[in-house]
Amino acid sequence: MPISWRLCFEWRCVLLIMLSMLVSAFATAQNGSSDPLPSWNNGPAKKSILDFVADTTTEISPDFVPPDQRIATFDHDGTLWLEQPVVTELVFAIDRVKALAAQHPEWKHEQPFKAAIEDDQTALFASGEAGIGKIIAASHAGVTTDEFGKIVEDWISTTQNQRYKRLYTNCVYQPMLEVLAYLRANGFKTYIISSGDVDFLRPWSQRVYGVPPEQVIGSSFKMKFEMRGEKPVLMRLPETDPINDGPGKAIGTLRFIGKRPLASFGNSDDDQQMLEWTAAGAGLRLMLIVHHTDADREYAYDRISSVGRLDKVLDEATAKGWVIVDTKRDWKAIFPSSEAH
Amino acid sequence: MPISWRLCFEWRCVLLIMLSMLVSAFATAQNGSSDPLPSWNNGPAKKSILDFVADTTTEISPDFVPPDQRIATFDHDGTLWLEQPVVTELVFAIDRVKALAAQHPEWKHEQPFKAAIEDDQTALFASGEAGIGKIIAASHAGVTTDEFGKIVEDWISTTQNQRYKRLYTNCVYQPMLEVLAYLRANGFKTYIISSGDVDFLRPWSQRVYGVPPEQVIGSSFKMKFEMRGEKPVLMRLPETDPINDGPGKAIGTLRFIGKRPLASFGNSDDDQQMLEWTAAGAGLRLMLIVHHTDADREYAYDRISSVGRLDKVLDEATAKGWVIVDTKRDWKAIFPSSEAH
Repeated sequence: MPISWRLCFEWRCVLLIMLSMLVSAFATAQNGSSDPLPSWNNGPAKKSILDFVADTTTEISPDFVPPDQRIATFDHDGTLWLEQPVVTELVFAIDRVKALAAQHPEWKHEQPFKAAIEDDQTALFASGEAGIGKIIAASHAGVTTDEFGKIVEDWISTTQNQRYKRLYTNCVYQPMLEVLAYLRANGFKTYIISSGDVDFLRPWSQRVYGVPPEQVIGSSFKMKFEMRGEKPVLMRLPETDPINDGPGKAIGTLRFIGKRPLASFGNSDDDQQMLEWTAAGAGLRLMLIVHHTDADREYAYDRISSVGRLDKVLDEATAKGWVIVDTKRDWKAIFPSSEAH
Repeated sequence: MPISWRLCFEWRCVLLIMLSMLVSAFATAQNGSSDPLPSWNNGPAKKSILDFVADTTTEISPDFVPPDQRIATFDHDGTLWLEQPVVTELVFAIDRVKALAAQHPEWKHEQPFKAAIEDDQTALFASGEAGIGKIIAASHAGVTTDEFGKIVEDWISTTQNQRYKRLYTNCVYQPMLEVLAYLRANGFKTYIISSGDVDFLRPWSQRVYGVPPEQVIGSSFKMKFEMRGEKPVLMRLPETDPINDGPGKAIGTLRFIGKRPLASFGNSDDDQQMLEWTAAGAGLRLMLIVHHTDADREYAYDRISSVGRLDKVLDEATAKGWVIVDTKRDWKAIFPSSEAH
C-alpha cells in the first residue's frame, strides 16, 4: 500500500470510529425515549413481543438467531385487517359481479349472481360454498394478471367500509402495523400468509404493510400462458390451486419460503397448523393469536363465529402458553388515526 | 434542539461528508482496477451485461429502474450448472434408489428400478417418462421435508461428477456465478427458476449461488401435514404439483414473485416462455441464453440434444436480438478454479 493511501486509510479509520461512536450515542438517546409499539397497552402481550425480539436478536443471548433465519409469518384476514362482518375480498367479489352484470344479462335470473346483484345476503349465503365459489370465480378470472392487478388497485383505492366510512386499507390494525415494522427493524423478514387470493393483496401490500409482493403467499388461480397478438399474457382461469388454508398454510409457507418461521401470528382455527408447525421448530419461537374482544371499537367474536372462528386454537394457545392478544385490553388503538393509506 | 445537540449534529454532518468523500474515492479507485466479470472474454455478450446493468441502475439514465423492480431470474440446469450427459437430479435419484434397494427386494426384478440398481442406462431411458417418474417419486417422497433436506445435503456434499472428478457443486459455471454476484452488487434480487424439485436445490443454493431458499422456485412434491407423536411434520407425497417448466416457468415466476423479471437467463427451449414474458415488459430488459459450444472443456449441444435442447429459442434469440452466449468464445473459464463449494 503506498504511503499516501495508507495515510488516507488511517484517516478513514479514525473518522469511521468517531462517526460510529456519535451515531451510536444518537441512536441510544433516541431508543431510550421511543416505544416501538405505542398502540399497545403495557401488559403481558406487549412484553412477550418485546422480550422475544430482544432474546432472538441480541448476540450474547442464548436464544440469538442469525438474521437469515428471522422469518415472521402473519395471517391476513382478522390478524392484519378487519374481517367482520364479511371478509373484504367477498365485498370486492360482489362489487365486481355487479360491475360485470351488464355483460351477463342471464345473471338477473341465476343464483347466486341474482343475490349478489340485489345485495341479498341471505340468499347469497344460502347458496353455500359452491355459490360463493361461483361469485369468486366470476369476479377473479377471465382477465390477464396485469388487468386483474389494475382492477384490484382501482377498487381498493376507492371503496370505503360501510361501518367505519374509510378505505379498507385504513381498516388495518395499527398495533399490528407496529409489530410488522418493529420486526423488520430488527432484521426479520415479514411474510403474509393468506387463504385469500394472493393477487388481491399484492398490488397494495408494500404500500399498506411494507410487505413486498414476493413476501405475500396466498391461494392462487390457475393461469394460462397465451399470446395476445405478438405479446404473451398470463390469463387467469376460473379454477384455483389448492386453497392456502389450515394445513395448507404450513405447507404453503414451506413451499414458498423453504424455511420454518421463527414467529407466527394468527387469529383463527384456520391458522392452527401454521402456528403448530412454527412451534415445532427448535429454540425460542413466538406464536401469537389475536382474540377479538372489543365489540365497541371493532367486533367481539370467537368460538361460534362463522367468520374467523377461534375455538380449538383458543384452547390450544391457552394450554401451550402461546401469546393471546385481548384486543380490548391490549390495543390502545384499533385502526390508524388518520387516512394513512 | 438544544445547543449541545445541534453542535453534535453539525459535527456529525461534517464527519459524514468527509467520510463519504473518502469512501467514494476509495471505491472509484477500486472499481477502476477491477472487472466484475473476470471469467468473461471481452466481446458482445459481456458488453451487453455490463451495459444493461449500467443503464438500469444509473439514476440519470432514461432506462433507470428502481431497486424493488430489479428482479433477475435464472434457469438452473445448463444455465447455472452442468446438465450433461444427464441432469444431476437424476443421478441423485438413481443413487437414492440404490440406497433404498435393500428395503425393496422386489426392485431387483421390477423395471425401471432394476435398471437403476444395475446402472443400465439403456433400459432406464427405455422406460420413458413414466419410468423416470417412478424413479423420481421413489427417491424424492416418503420422507419428511426435514429428512429430505438432510438426504440432499449428505449426497451433494459428498458425490463427485465422474468426468470432472469434483463435487457437483463445483460443476457450476464460474462466469454465471460472477453474473449473479454482479447483479446483486447492483441491487438486483436474483432468483433461480428450475424445473427440478425445489427441495433438491434449497439446502445448498445460498452456499453455492448466494441465492437464499426463498428465492428458489421449482417443481414441488405434494405435502401432507401429519402428527408424529406430539410434533407435526410435513410428509412428502409421491405426487408432484404441475411441473415448473415451459409456460410453467413464466407462471411460476409470477406466482412466487408477483413481479415481472427485468432480466432472464436460460439455455434451452424450456425457458422460452420465461424469456418471452420477461421481454414483453415495458422498458429495457435483458434476455440471455447460454449456448453450449465447447466440447473440449464441457459439452457442445443444441438443436438435437435430448437434454437441454436449444432449437426454437436459438432462432428466436437470433431474430429478436437477445444475448447469445457462446461458451467457447465468451467464457475464459467454465468451472471455479478450485474446490470452492
